[in-house]
Amino acid sequence: MTYCVAMCLADGLVFVSDSRTNAGIDQISTFRKLFTFGVSGERLIVLQCAGNLATSQSVINLLKQRLDGATPNLDSVPTLYDATALVAQTVREVVARDAVALAGNTDLSCSFLVGGQIVGAAPELYSIYPQGNFIQATEDTPFLQLGESKYGKPILDRNLQFDTRLEEALRCALVSFDSTIRSNLSVGMPLDLLVYHRDSLILPAGYRVTEDDAYFAKVRRQWSLGLHELLGQLPAPPSEYNV
Amino acid sequence: MTYCVAMCLADGLVFVSDSRTNAGIDQISTFRKLFTFGVSGERLIVLQCAGNLATSQSVINLLKQRLDGATPNLDSVPTLYDATALVAQTVREVVARDAVALAGNTDLSCSFLVGGQIVGAAPELYSIYPQGNFIQATEDTPFLQLGESKYGKPILDRNLQFDTRLEEALRCALVSFDSTIRSNLSVGMPLDLLVYHRDSLILPAGYRVTEDDAYFAKVRRQWSLGLHELLGQLPAPPSEYNV
Repeated sequence: MTYCVAMCLADGLVFVSDSRTNAGIDQISTFRKLFTFGVSGERLIVLQCAGNLATSQSVINLLKQRLDGATPNLDSVPTLYDATALVAQTVREVVARDAVALAGNTDLSCSFLVGGQIVGAAPELYSIYPQGNFIQATEDTPFLQLGESKYGKPILDRNLQFDTRLEEALRCALVSFDSTIRSNLSVGMPLDLLVYHRDSLILPAGYRVTEDDAYFAKVRRQWSLGLHELLGQLPAPPSEYNV
Repeated sequence: MTYCVAMCLADGLVFVSDSRTNAGIDQISTFRKLFTFGVSGERLIVLQCAGNLATSQSVINLLKQRLDGATPNLDSVPTLYDATALVAQTVREVVARDAVALAGNTDLSCSFLVGGQIVGAAPELYSIYPQGNFIQATEDTPFLQLGESKYGKPILDRNLQFDTRLEEALRCALVSFDSTIRSNLSVGMPLDLLVYHRDSLILPAGYRVTEDDAYFAKVRRQWSLGLHELLGQLPAPPSEYNV
């Protein structure tokens, strides 16, 4: 399984992905699920993926290979909407290609989040379903998730709005990942994260949060202790609760 | 869908259930999912259910009817293990009966949590799978859930141990329900809750938490504000995070 979150906010974009893949409980590996395309000063396009690893890796490889001359490609599409349609089309192409010779009933499908900004337009964020159609994040619903989304959704539902500052949004995402990783073995470290400031049109370096990351360890510890204290501070139930 | 939590702790048992049932998004009703059996001074048996409503209602009705003379019944079984096996057997009986004439491929299955205490033994808690086999809560894993369990699992994983006091465990359960209700429309108010103090062997009255319950509203508000503050107090990411 997988857990990815992306946010499209007033100040820019935030992306966080885990890196655990598994084929059965006894075949667990680490693979990056966050990929950056773009041209500095002109466009940034970030992809996150979940689902069949063979399919998603093929999609990323084809998208990269085709930067070299193919039309359309992610360096030439005029809008982020068109970039998303191109990723979706490439998913369909790979699934159709690999399904032909497929033994058994392996699920080849995968999902993508596509976010970024192209000069002249606002930042945008899309989620491509396994079927290839896609939805767009809006001011009402400024975040999208892939994979094991339920454990970490309440903290996002409670705290994330379109005008949340990027740094606070990133902390919220890290807490969402902490909750998910604690409760579900199929989501695991390291995490790949990337924060993009609106209109900067630079390709951010991003950061890989490893098991021994001091800041993430501090966030986890402080959050855990804080929750425990909060719980202790809640008022005692009244007598009609019959506790 | 449904969300039920039960806890088997050093000091006793805690049960909380939601009451929303739905057959499609446009057919939503309120049905109690928490039922009490027992004989004051001798035994308390609490059932919580999820899944097909026709099946679970039939199971509860048959278990009640059979208190009047049938053997075994929930007033006569010698152990909570036997009580659980009886509930499981009754589920299989109802599913087998109703499957015979079933048009289409309706899923008749349902799941139960069975917790309680019978004089002479410690409190126990079991979870019956739709297939009819069942597992028991232990000191290592003192809580069991039914239904939409993921949203509210992190707060339980983080804060609930076998020696958690009953009142704190109840607050933890209420927060778990708050998170679930906020993030998933298929889980809804009112909540039915029941706290049992070990060795009391009384049949507790329990309590129904309605939409306008002042205490639950206060817990929700205080928790929500507290989380937001906690998030604000987390340290800022270091420079290598490239935020």
